[in-house]
Amino acid sequence: MEDNKDLQTKTNLDRITHRIMVMSGKGGVGKSFIAVNLAYGLALQGKTVGLLDADIHGPSIAKLTGIEGVPLPEHQQSGKPMPIMVLNNIHVLSVASMLSSENSALIWRGPLKMALIKQFFSDFEWPPLDYLIVDCPPGTGDEPLSVIQTLGKVDGAVIVTTPQDLALIDVRKSVSFAEQLKVPILGIIENMKYFVCPHCGEQTAIFQGNKLEVLIFEKSIDLLAELELDPNIGIASDKGRPYIYDFGKTTNAEILQSAVDRILAKVES
Amino acid sequence: MEDNKDLQTKTNLDRITHRIMVMSGKGGVGKSFIAVNLAYGLALQGKTVGLLDADIHGPSIAKLTGIEGVPLPEHQQSGKPMPIMVLNNIHVLSVASMLSSENSALIWRGPLKMALIKQFFSDFEWPPLDYLIVDCPPGTGDEPLSVIQTLGKVDGAVIVTTPQDLALIDVRKSVSFAEQLKVPILGIIENMKYFVCPHCGEQTAIFQGNKLEVLIFEKSIDLLAELELDPNIGIASDKGRPYIYDFGKTTNAEILQSAVDRILAKVES
Repeated sequence: MEDNKDLQTKTNLDRITHRIMVMSGKGGVGKSFIAVNLAYGLALQGKTVGLLDADIHGPSIAKLTGIEGVPLPEHQQSGKPMPIMVLNNIHVLSVASMLSSENSALIWRGPLKMALIKQFFSDFEWPPLDYLIVDCPPGTGDEPLSVIQTLGKVDGAVIVTTPQDLALIDVRKSVSFAEQLKVPILGIIENMKYFVCPHCGEQTAIFQGNKLEVLIFEKSIDLLAELELDPNIGIASDKGRPYIYDFGKTTNAEILQSAVDRILAKVES
Repeated sequence: MEDNKDLQTKTNLDRITHRIMVMSGKGGVGKSFIAVNLAYGLALQGKTVGLLDADIHGPSIAKLTGIEGVPLPEHQQSGKPMPIMVLNNIHVLSVASMLSSENSALIWRGPLKMALIKQFFSDFEWPPLDYLIVDCPPGTGDEPLSVIQTLGKVDGAVIVTTPQDLALIDVRKSVSFAEQLKVPILGIIENMKYFVCPHCGEQTAIFQGNKLEVLIFEKSIDLLAELELDPNIGIASDKGRPYIYDFGKTTNAEILQSAVDRILAKVES
């Protein structure tokens, strides 16, 4: 039985060409928002993308992709549940879906988080993918470590942060975590960098940390994007719609898409 | 040995008159900021306050109160470490301080989080307190449950959120968690409600959820404060200074102080 599971994990992973982890040191910086839009941005470039919500304690990918309460379909041959196809080239698997599916008892039996994360691959039937985007739990604890151990090969990590010195401590931890585990850092996305007043058009830096530049310089890390705190992000998120599609013509979405393109170029170079 | 520990936990808890938990469904909503300012706000009213950072995975109270790297003092008689006195009537104990202290190995030995949370009381010498404010980990998992079980009697919970529908799901969970455990809900603080442009003075709702009102009405929960997303909060936080002191004359800080006064009135009525 265990052998079958390992085989299934291996088979599923063999079908995935590139694997990208989206990490953040602390919660609330927009990590899941970036993971979703990274997936959609890659899909816009014609890639077949899987999006895995591995944020066990605070899964929000189901809400962000509008699949809350949607039951997982079954694979015709194996009878195993499959990720939900939100577009013809995007497949989403969220812990939230697992909880609402009939398989929830099975899935949560293992007390170890490592076991749980392995089950994302052993107990589900993934289609062949060009990219798998994994939305990791915040921090540098057991869960992201288990993600790396399960995936085996990870092409790179995208670190999401906000411009606060308080958040920077955690970015340093994420960077050193990735370095220790020999996961290449694809770059940092600085979210909520500034706000443009819709009344007068003036920019304000709501969060005012300024030490990220030092870290980026020290470590030669790529700053992939500095994103605006655009109220439309909240609107898209609450509707379960991808911002990069629905507000694709905004400068902010273009910056995000260009970050996606840089990630793509790095991974496939 | 275990009996001594239980006795010590009991003795420490006997010295604490009122216990308040600060909770949030998701990270990044400003829970720790509220916990710190609640503690300072109570201290401004002459209360002796303890502030416990029980957010094991992302402790930020040490940074927010400017005690990062400050070693824990030892109690003269017992030789046990004590919380750090940041003002003559505020005593702070953070997981971060525990990690940097020589006691870190001892403290983290127990694999169970319940044991760790018990140690906050058994292994430290707390002074007599009018109030203990506990900054809980986000969510409604084992940790906040352990906090309640350890404290025994909890006077009430303050729930912190931001105005996003995505955050509201988690607020509902926090409310039902408190109800199930018979912890009175002192009220909700809605953080980052709007932004006032420093250039033109116009308000913008950056996050635009609008369903919190429904929940508040359904459950007759008190909305203690709607706070502005004031860039000074980031400035104060990054300096490890309490916003409610350093920016005490702003309308926002006054709203926060009046929330503190309402909590005080509820708990002591």
